[in-house]
Amino acid sequence: MIDSLSATQLDTPNGRYGPAGAPADNAVMSMADFHSWFNARTRANSFQVDRIPFAELSGWNFDPDTGNLVHGSGRFFSIEGLRVRTGRPWVSEWGQPIIVQPEIGVLGILVKRFDGVLHCLMQAKMEPGNINGLQISPTVQATRSNYMQVHGGAGTKYLEYFRADTRGRVLFDGLQSEQGSWFLHKRNRNIVVETEDDVPLDEDFCWLTLGQIHRLLLLDHMVNMDSRTVLSCIPSALTDSREQDTGDDSFTHAVRCSLSGDGRAVHDSGRILSWLTEVRARRELVQRRVPLKHLTEDGWRLGPDVIDHRDGKYFDVIAVAVQASNREVTAWTQPLVAPKQPGLLALLVKRIDGTLHALVQARSDAGMLNIAELTATVHCQPDNYADVPAEHRPPYLDYALAAPAYRVRLDVLHSEEGGRFHHAQNRYLVIEVEDDIADPDDRFLWTTLHQLTSLLPHSNYLTVELRSLMASMRSLTQRL
Amino acid sequence: MIDSLSATQLDTPNGRYGPAGAPADNAVMSMADFHSWFNARTRANSFQVDRIPFAELSGWNFDPDTGNLVHGSGRFFSIEGLRVRTGRPWVSEWGQPIIVQPEIGVLGILVKRFDGVLHCLMQAKMEPGNINGLQISPTVQATRSNYMQVHGGAGTKYLEYFRADTRGRVLFDGLQSEQGSWFLHKRNRNIVVETEDDVPLDEDFCWLTLGQIHRLLLLDHMVNMDSRTVLSCIPSALTDSREQDTGDDSFTHAVRCSLSGDGRAVHDSGRILSWLTEVRARRELVQRRVPLKHLTEDGWRLGPDVIDHRDGKYFDVIAVAVQASNREVTAWTQPLVAPKQPGLLALLVKRIDGTLHALVQARSDAGMLNIAELTATVHCQPDNYADVPAEHRPPYLDYALAAPAYRVRLDVLHSEEGGRFHHAQNRYLVIEVEDDIADPDDRFLWTTLHQLTSLLPHSNYLTVELRSLMASMRSLTQRL
Repeated sequence: MIDSLSATQLDTPNGRYGPAGAPADNAVMSMADFHSWFNARTRANSFQVDRIPFAELSGWNFDPDTGNLVHGSGRFFSIEGLRVRTGRPWVSEWGQPIIVQPEIGVLGILVKRFDGVLHCLMQAKMEPGNINGLQISPTVQATRSNYMQVHGGAGTKYLEYFRADTRGRVLFDGLQSEQGSWFLHKRNRNIVVETEDDVPLDEDFCWLTLGQIHRLLLLDHMVNMDSRTVLSCIPSALTDSREQDTGDDSFTHAVRCSLSGDGRAVHDSGRILSWLTEVRARRELVQRRVPLKHLTEDGWRLGPDVIDHRDGKYFDVIAVAVQASNREVTAWTQPLVAPKQPGLLALLVKRIDGTLHALVQARSDAGMLNIAELTATVHCQPDNYADVPAEHRPPYLDYALAAPAYRVRLDVLHSEEGGRFHHAQNRYLVIEVEDDIADPDDRFLWTTLHQLTSLLPHSNYLTVELRSLMASMRSLTQRL
Repeated sequence: MIDSLSATQLDTPNGRYGPAGAPADNAVMSMADFHSWFNARTRANSFQVDRIPFAELSGWNFDPDTGNLVHGSGRFFSIEGLRVRTGRPWVSEWGQPIIVQPEIGVLGILVKRFDGVLHCLMQAKMEPGNINGLQISPTVQATRSNYMQVHGGAGTKYLEYFRADTRGRVLFDGLQSEQGSWFLHKRNRNIVVETEDDVPLDEDFCWLTLGQIHRLLLLDHMVNMDSRTVLSCIPSALTDSREQDTGDDSFTHAVRCSLSGDGRAVHDSGRILSWLTEVRARRELVQRRVPLKHLTEDGWRLGPDVIDHRDGKYFDVIAVAVQASNREVTAWTQPLVAPKQPGLLALLVKRIDGTLHALVQARSDAGMLNIAELTATVHCQPDNYADVPAEHRPPYLDYALAAPAYRVRLDVLHSEEGGRFHHAQNRYLVIEVEDDIADPDDRFLWTTLHQLTSLLPHSNYLTVELRSLMASMRSLTQRL
């Protein structure tokens, strides 16, 4: 991705450079400078998040008829009840709280070439549910209401670059789904816009190359979910250079062949669509919204401080009070969904004729809009299955948990959206297998990475968790 | 499409041939034979459809709590209430009855090459709502329950060719939406399978070439909706031959360039997706299911014989008793939705640099799954707008109604799904414009036909009405 820059080429408008060392550092800002800046932003911005009882929420209340947790303005989101009927053999029907947020927000990354190298304008942003305060965020995370304001106001910095009448060249623009286990039909607009303008740099923002971001994706809790989903949508032609393909070991080569589409795929794309259509046509996923207060019949306890399940599994709904110095509003209260345990997203990959193939599953979550989406081979909260009979445990879960270190190609913890989830973290694993796994059943299919990314322009194909993994797969092709 | 066949090539397994006259007749069955056969099937099959009061429905009842009209088995479909909130300036919120049918059925066409020429196995089928009894239907129209039966049973002929374990080569397989004005989130699986088997020919079925079907699409109420949607999904490479492109006038040439993708498009496909994403992100479509009995607040009258709106507009819900000789079940009762007036689907097209472009709109209907889909330039029941102020009448409606004959390239009446709708007919118009129309606003975009068909492998892009028009556009390239 990173061209080798000469001394004169380093004379870019931004004026902050690192040493001309490793290629990925030859950018507007070196990795050393990035970390110094990020640490400084962390020290400069104070924030505090405290648990509070629901009664202390300001502007939020439980609707007297339904028990739904709603905001008085009717905006933001609500916590309601959902009953789901599926054809699964183990727990085929259940009720659960669900976040209802019909408005579509904007997640946008502004990109600009400096000396021919694409840079992304990224933000150091705090979200109340973050495990560690600041994370790297997209240029903008805006609600529909922000976006619709014609005159912008002081609300969201750089939003003007993403408006229809002012935006530059659109590199990607599509709706992408978010966590189907916790959200009802939620999607955000993922958009990447290239500008040639001189962009004034706010102190909470920095320009990073894709190579630098891919290296940051290898760090725990550094790049937030909103960044990861938008990054996964950046077209391969911009992210995956074949010119770097010298001196790589054969795994890296197989990843590149798979990302570029040059490698041979075991199934053609028509077969992949037909397989997914078959799953969507045969599988049952009947969703019915119900009042939150009805969920007591399903084992949920509606307490003054927490909504939780009597089995101690799944997630809680809690309330927090937030004080932050670098947000548009500096103090507020809000509910959050707090998963009981970390999730596991394990993608089994295999070299087939020199091209990496990923074993994806067609998964149905309670709140999905389109019955099933493609996701990682293993996608669950493992502790939820502690007492489940072996034949109903997710396929490959035990394999992934016991995978030997030499098979593990990626192992990183990422946070899920800190604006809705409290300390929601998932372990993202890429495990290279050979012929040592059980044959996949018809919920699974081997695909190349290029086949997966070519579905991204259309909505509701890849879960947000698989998109996180796709962004991380590009990290595996970076020189370190 | 149709190769010229020699006398020996005419020796096909089926043994029924027409005269070797016009190319499109050089098939297994001539057009003359087709019409004789179709007329004979009409005479051979008796059917009778009578209006009945709701109380005489067998197996159906109004749920005492909700007033919803449901089947006692919980299967088939139900008529429920839907409240919709939109940001439209004229009638921004309303309630209406809606058909709820969460199961995904199969609409499949089996194809086979006879002497190298693709033929479709089509059926002469009666549906209770049909204006004229028999219409040409796909090889199978099967419910999910039919499809899921492992052993098939006597139920649906030829269904075995569409099962995962027995099907031949899949040419298309995707979920497609149906009428968003009348259905909640309804989709069917559209599938085209090619076989090389000897297929026994049932008396209600015949093999037709695509060229023959495209000629039948020029006749009123001949090819049913289920056929039209599946036909629109057949890949262009199989339907649109460039070899026929000799001696055509320039309109036909512009249609072929547009269908094949050879012509130059005014917008690239990224621009089309970004425009539609913008519409979906900005536009409001909040759907809330409500008990049918609550719709009395919205002007709906729940009578013993009919559910209708006090304004005399939109549609009625009625009940019918059916007797039919060529259906799996020979007598039954069911509700139907009966539109008050025919609809108008007018597609404005224009030659731009020799390539036909269609002016599509991004339309939101009450029951749509994905906020907005692409549809014809004009898509409405005109009588619903008789009393609406000029500024809120659908753009181009008055233009389409007044279009001079020399501009009209297609004008045909087609029926909508006769299994759910009573005498639902739409007028499908293709009108060629020059620079004599008002500039389109941001609800509209000029696209080539190839750009539209390339979206069909993914769900919820084109309305069923636009897909009907797409199937018919191919008729415009046929020699007559």
